[in-house]
Amino acid sequence: MSIQVIAFDADDTLWVNETYFREAEDKFCALLEDYLPHHSVAKELFYTELQNIPHYGYGVKGFMLSMIETAIEVTEGRVEASVIAEILAAGREMLRHPVDLLPHARAAVEALAAEFKVLVITKGDLLDQERKVAQSGLGNLFHGVEIVSDKTPEVYRRIFARHGTGASQAMMVGNSLKSDVLPAIAAGGWGVHVPHGITWALEHAEPPQAEPRFHSLPSLETLPDLVGQIKATHNL
Amino acid sequence: MSIQVIAFDADDTLWVNETYFREAEDKFCALLEDYLPHHSVAKELFYTELQNIPHYGYGVKGFMLSMIETAIEVTEGRVEASVIAEILAAGREMLRHPVDLLPHARAAVEALAAEFKVLVITKGDLLDQERKVAQSGLGNLFHGVEIVSDKTPEVYRRIFARHGTGASQAMMVGNSLKSDVLPAIAAGGWGVHVPHGITWALEHAEPPQAEPRFHSLPSLETLPDLVGQIKATHNL
Repeated sequence: MSIQVIAFDADDTLWVNETYFREAEDKFCALLEDYLPHHSVAKELFYTELQNIPHYGYGVKGFMLSMIETAIEVTEGRVEASVIAEILAAGREMLRHPVDLLPHARAAVEALAAEFKVLVITKGDLLDQERKVAQSGLGNLFHGVEIVSDKTPEVYRRIFARHGTGASQAMMVGNSLKSDVLPAIAAGGWGVHVPHGITWALEHAEPPQAEPRFHSLPSLETLPDLVGQIKATHNL
Repeated sequence: MSIQVIAFDADDTLWVNETYFREAEDKFCALLEDYLPHHSVAKELFYTELQNIPHYGYGVKGFMLSMIETAIEVTEGRVEASVIAEILAAGREMLRHPVDLLPHARAAVEALAAEFKVLVITKGDLLDQERKVAQSGLGNLFHGVEIVSDKTPEVYRRIFARHGTGASQAMMVGNSLKSDVLPAIAAGGWGVHVPHGITWALEHAEPPQAEPRFHSLPSLETLPDLVGQIKATHNL
């Protein structure tokens, strides 16, 4: 028995993402400053997003629709079309934004791909996530790219069964405890948390400190070492 | 050698879809009648959608964003927020719309699932297509559900390899010659066209009449018979 599969979250694990959402949100709040202070608009947007996720799922398109809805609500229907047009432009800019790899992402993926099946498991809009994988220049290193509507233990179980020999021989690496680490551990796998500066409020969770299959790393730099240590310690 | 996999397109093959897009479009054009005649708005919307597909992909969320963009354009920025709010409401209604199975869809899928691996291969928004599969009541009959950003021969080849023994032993059934039938045949598989009343202009293509792996059926009623005949004729 050995670790067979190492799966990476994409956004804010392999490349920058949340930063661009926050920049778009700042622009959005500034557009509506005549109506409501910045932080109140941000709060309204957050609640609108929260309500819309069951309908829109994750990703830029749903974010754009939630900004438009919030603009109408906070202005009580007085928002001008020019503001809506700027929201559309900000969203399209996000969808065209070049992919900025995070430090050590390429080296970690390259090192691990030489020994393991390396996957990407990500939420978000199908086309946009495919675009980012392609533009990342890492595409050829991945044995599979799984774009999913939610990250539950069941989803991890299914993916690790399809691409390997099950969750017990798989590791999930990501910046979200809630979406990447906890459900992968619940599925029976290893979970490695690599925090990123900014985490979306919806992705917040507490680390499972007592869990032996949980690890936390400051960056992807030492991930290949950690995997080596786990293999040695567990005689995998 | 035998047919192993039978894959169905989802929208307008297993259940009604385009009708709801046209209903939303009619509502949308009516909202803008003060600015432009119905057919001109419809034409503008079509061109906006065409331009946006490389960025938004297929599905309801992109359609909503394209309607909003078109509304701003045809009114030269004078559209009222109440119209934008109605567009959002029309889109959310689409995302909540109950799934109406097409005639013979259940019987055909049930009959074929007893003998073959039955797949769904569909474009569109991830979450919305998953919702429709779940609500269709057919979910348990499918060996796999593949939601893809585009339907190319390469995509079919990959899916048929993953779920069976390759495209030469697979059949794709759908209402779109362009997306379902032609690329599946180009991949080396069988293509069965089951036309639906309304086809989106973007999905138009000519039938490959001289192609022995091409078949056309008026409905899904006779699909199990056709599969039986193909097996008998080709000694599969």
